[in-house]
Amino acid sequence: MALADELARKQRSISVAEFFEKNKHLLGFDSPTRGIITTIKEAVDNALDACEEAMVLPDIYIAIKKISSDVYRIIVEDNGPGIVPDQIPFVFGKLLYGSRFHQIKQSRGQQGIGISAAVLYAQLTTGLPSTIISRTGPESRAYRFDIQINIESNEPDVLVREETEWDRTHGTRVQIEFRSTLAAKKRLLDYLKYTSVVNPHARIRVELDDESFTFERVSDEVIECPQPIQPHPHGIEIGHLKRMLAACDAPLEDFLIQGFCRVGKKTAGEMCTLSGLSPDIPARSLSSDEQKRLIDAMQNVKVPAPPTLQCLSPIGEDLITQGLEKEFQMDFVRARTRSSSVFSGHPFVVEAALGYGGKLPAEGNAQILRFANRVPLIYQQGACAITGSISQISWKNYGISQSGLPTGPVLILVHVASTNVPFTSESKDAIASIPEIEREIVLALQDLGRDLKTYLSRRDKNRIQEDRARAVCAIIPELAEKVAEIVDMPLPDISPIEGRIMKKVVAKKMIRDGKVSIEVKNYTSHPETISIYNTSQDGAGDATTPPDFVTELDNEYTKVWKVPLEPGSVWRVDYRGTGGGTLEIRGIDEKKIVVVDVDV
Amino acid sequence: MALADELARKQRSISVAEFFEKNKHLLGFDSPTRGIITTIKEAVDNALDACEEAMVLPDIYIAIKKISSDVYRIIVEDNGPGIVPDQIPFVFGKLLYGSRFHQIKQSRGQQGIGISAAVLYAQLTTGLPSTIISRTGPESRAYRFDIQINIESNEPDVLVREETEWDRTHGTRVQIEFRSTLAAKKRLLDYLKYTSVVNPHARIRVELDDESFTFERVSDEVIECPQPIQPHPHGIEIGHLKRMLAACDAPLEDFLIQGFCRVGKKTAGEMCTLSGLSPDIPARSLSSDEQKRLIDAMQNVKVPAPPTLQCLSPIGEDLITQGLEKEFQMDFVRARTRSSSVFSGHPFVVEAALGYGGKLPAEGNAQILRFANRVPLIYQQGACAITGSISQISWKNYGISQSGLPTGPVLILVHVASTNVPFTSESKDAIASIPEIEREIVLALQDLGRDLKTYLSRRDKNRIQEDRARAVCAIIPELAEKVAEIVDMPLPDISPIEGRIMKKVVAKKMIRDGKVSIEVKNYTSHPETISIYNTSQDGAGDATTPPDFVTELDNEYTKVWKVPLEPGSVWRVDYRGTGGGTLEIRGIDEKKIVVVDVDV
Repeated sequence: MALADELARKQRSISVAEFFEKNKHLLGFDSPTRGIITTIKEAVDNALDACEEAMVLPDIYIAIKKISSDVYRIIVEDNGPGIVPDQIPFVFGKLLYGSRFHQIKQSRGQQGIGISAAVLYAQLTTGLPSTIISRTGPESRAYRFDIQINIESNEPDVLVREETEWDRTHGTRVQIEFRSTLAAKKRLLDYLKYTSVVNPHARIRVELDDESFTFERVSDEVIECPQPIQPHPHGIEIGHLKRMLAACDAPLEDFLIQGFCRVGKKTAGEMCTLSGLSPDIPARSLSSDEQKRLIDAMQNVKVPAPPTLQCLSPIGEDLITQGLEKEFQMDFVRARTRSSSVFSGHPFVVEAALGYGGKLPAEGNAQILRFANRVPLIYQQGACAITGSISQISWKNYGISQSGLPTGPVLILVHVASTNVPFTSESKDAIASIPEIEREIVLALQDLGRDLKTYLSRRDKNRIQEDRARAVCAIIPELAEKVAEIVDMPLPDISPIEGRIMKKVVAKKMIRDGKVSIEVKNYTSHPETISIYNTSQDGAGDATTPPDFVTELDNEYTKVWKVPLEPGSVWRVDYRGTGGGTLEIRGIDEKKIVVVDVDV
Repeated sequence: MALADELARKQRSISVAEFFEKNKHLLGFDSPTRGIITTIKEAVDNALDACEEAMVLPDIYIAIKKISSDVYRIIVEDNGPGIVPDQIPFVFGKLLYGSRFHQIKQSRGQQGIGISAAVLYAQLTTGLPSTIISRTGPESRAYRFDIQINIESNEPDVLVREETEWDRTHGTRVQIEFRSTLAAKKRLLDYLKYTSVVNPHARIRVELDDESFTFERVSDEVIECPQPIQPHPHGIEIGHLKRMLAACDAPLEDFLIQGFCRVGKKTAGEMCTLSGLSPDIPARSLSSDEQKRLIDAMQNVKVPAPPTLQCLSPIGEDLITQGLEKEFQMDFVRARTRSSSVFSGHPFVVEAALGYGGKLPAEGNAQILRFANRVPLIYQQGACAITGSISQISWKNYGISQSGLPTGPVLILVHVASTNVPFTSESKDAIASIPEIEREIVLALQDLGRDLKTYLSRRDKNRIQEDRARAVCAIIPELAEKVAEIVDMPLPDISPIEGRIMKKVVAKKMIRDGKVSIEVKNYTSHPETISIYNTSQDGAGDATTPPDFVTELDNEYTKVWKVPLEPGSVWRVDYRGTGGGTLEIRGIDEKKIVVVDVDV
């Protein structure tokens, strides 16, 4: 058949650069809108990783400038350790090149594709090279490179290489121009906001055409850089083991001890015994059959889990909670950092947080914040294992309504940290559905769900008590008045009735005939000192007890009285006014106070 | 800073094979369960593509055999044109190698990754090479190769190359062994079933451990193989144009005519004029600025859409409908092939079908069948633009309930055919969210939705009419009887009343005192000849009018009477029996018939 020969002539090797040029959507360059975000994400990932390695507090500058109707210039500058001149062309001008792919530790970049993909996209859409300036220290000169990628060979084309002046003493600056739009500005700012939430040690300044934003550093503690570990003997595949053996000059025992984490002399000995191999034979001399016996033995000898503390860098419960509280007003928020776990030999940790109420929108799906290795994930929510795991949970068990995703005033944050986050594509938008990871996410969220349920049922109980108090304190006096009128008797003192029912501090605000009254009774058996905050449009200059202090904002007066209250005693203030506004009591356990606003 | 030097030492090139070994989930090898399906999918894709190119009716043999507790041997054999021996190591032992990546035409394979990924996965999980046998024709010998991939270099390692005997006169056989499970057997068979639905010219035999299945060929027509086209001048990027110019020896005008589709002498001339360039200057001599002017001109001159009929191969409305009717029992099914469209210069066609009712499950989400270039997509439904587009549509407008996806007895098929299907990852599970494609899917489904709405409203109208008829024919006689009894008068003839209301052919089935009666009255003004089908457990041997024929199946008798009915006439049969079963009238427009089963 001549056809086979004809077909053979069409067979060709495809360069990685060609492949990703044609499939640029795999790298997050499927639309001009996404291009800017993807580029900034990749550059910021690199900057944060580099600063972490150099133990430097990151100071990142981002500029996005419109050059012509559809071309934007993107600049990202960091104060990291810089890149030595000979490496620059490869780091920026060759796909699949980098320092983090071969190391087993948590890092933002892990593929060696990201930033060179932006260079590729620039030359595809504008035909322009990208400019990189880098300096490795105050005593070194800065270098400037103009770089393109040779598509057929996936090797860098260096158009300019020269020494240059630069005001930073160390760091790297990338300048890339491509066809783009700023249509997704909000998404970009969200990305930066969430990046700063989980990287509180970073300062990020942004110049966006004619606006500028700064995400300030809120912590001066350098994040400790995770340290690489060796592979774990339980997570190794035979193909990988064969290569390690072939590259090893040492005897088998040393190979096991040096090549794998958590393997000491004793464990290595057990592995040799179980596989029937001498610890002294050269590792590279093993036959195929012996290799198979070895891997079986490695997987059957008990070995502790990988030392995750060293290679992973979770955010931590406190920092997550603080970060969320800074950005969202919620009535409830809790975070959980799970202990570490392993999938296919890769250590990982899941962290999650659950927020409820406050200013979260009462309608619609829960807000979901996804993070992987401290990087916010902003696209492909539907395709992500995080979203899948959230949908799997029966949120109704925790008092939250659900239609697929939970609905209502709910915020869910999930962070997956791993030495190898399994993304669904090179654009790193979504985490692939790996059962071990999904299980950890579900467990973390169920745990938080139980906390939320406790909170909600306590809140509901409080609400019932408050309703009851309202009935007691608002309706009973009226009832008493009517009854007194009917039976033509004087109005009885109903305070003891209220007290008996309530056994709390009861604060009442009432308005009648243009007069506002606030009355606080202590029905408990303990003395209490409380602060009464009353905010309304009334200045209360004629208050029968003048406030201890008053603040005014936009015609709203907040009047504060600090009041000691003996058990059984009553405190009262009256002033002329229109009422309205709010009444709040502080300085006392919220369970012991009932606020009744008859005036609402 | 010494750190930069230290970091530089860690910088390394990453081979494509290393990259995908670590990120094997990107290729569809994230779990042992998926491995088998992915491998068979890739091998079958190649087999069908090769047969199409050779204009051969595909005869594909698949065997899956358990070798040890967790290792399976997978064999896929085809009768395609075969592969010349020198190419075999590259086709199977090098990622990113193939004949279809550089051609602009619809094909199942398009990346040059698929089958070598299976070879990679085999050597990773079992350490074993894969065996390929191929023969290019009866006068050539067959060759056998044992192949592995050198991970560090992404080049083939040939362990065995020898001539061998093989009973096929042409074709290719792949044998791959890896760690796997057959847990997803149903999904595998579904994949094969749907593959055979959209490739009716293929015969697929499967041996699955100890079971065997055959998906028979139902069409003897060879699918015409799509022909490659040149890129379209409107879809070209500057980076790509620069490379094309640099590789061209011809003058500009010839470059335009030969290098692009839909560009003739006249169009090329317009492009030259608009860009202010002479048609005679050598294409490769253009300066950067001239290149920019050229691409602007190319994009602004009017050019017809790409010749999609040539490079695309849609399934067609009839074939889709037939395929679905073969596999599903539905009351309604329609298909639509849209006219072709373009995204980023890649031509594509969307086809869709909508099925309703019948044996589709009445509860739960609609069943969704996704196809890309005649290949069923079986994973990642949630991440697919097809699913996204389906959710976007307001199905309630078409009488279908919805919660995100449409729900109820609904089946939706969507096929996207393109010269470059934008998958969300190399595993080709889901189509990326490209606005142009989503728009076409939505339009196709809305169009079908309108058809369904018409069908449903007609059905509902029929149902209302039937209800009304039931009232008239079942209740009025009883009413008449009761009234006659009360006023002590003889029973009136109510037929004229029924007739006046109905103006249809009315068929009634009744049972009383162990006697079944079927009565058909023609209230229309035309003579009709109808066939009465009555299926029940009654043999009706004593029927007052013997049936024209009777068939029996599992104790169910179908009795058929062929009856001419003059306007106003009545036909009737009685037999002893228990009743039940069904009554159906054929041979008359369904709008003109009302069946009333008083016996149900």
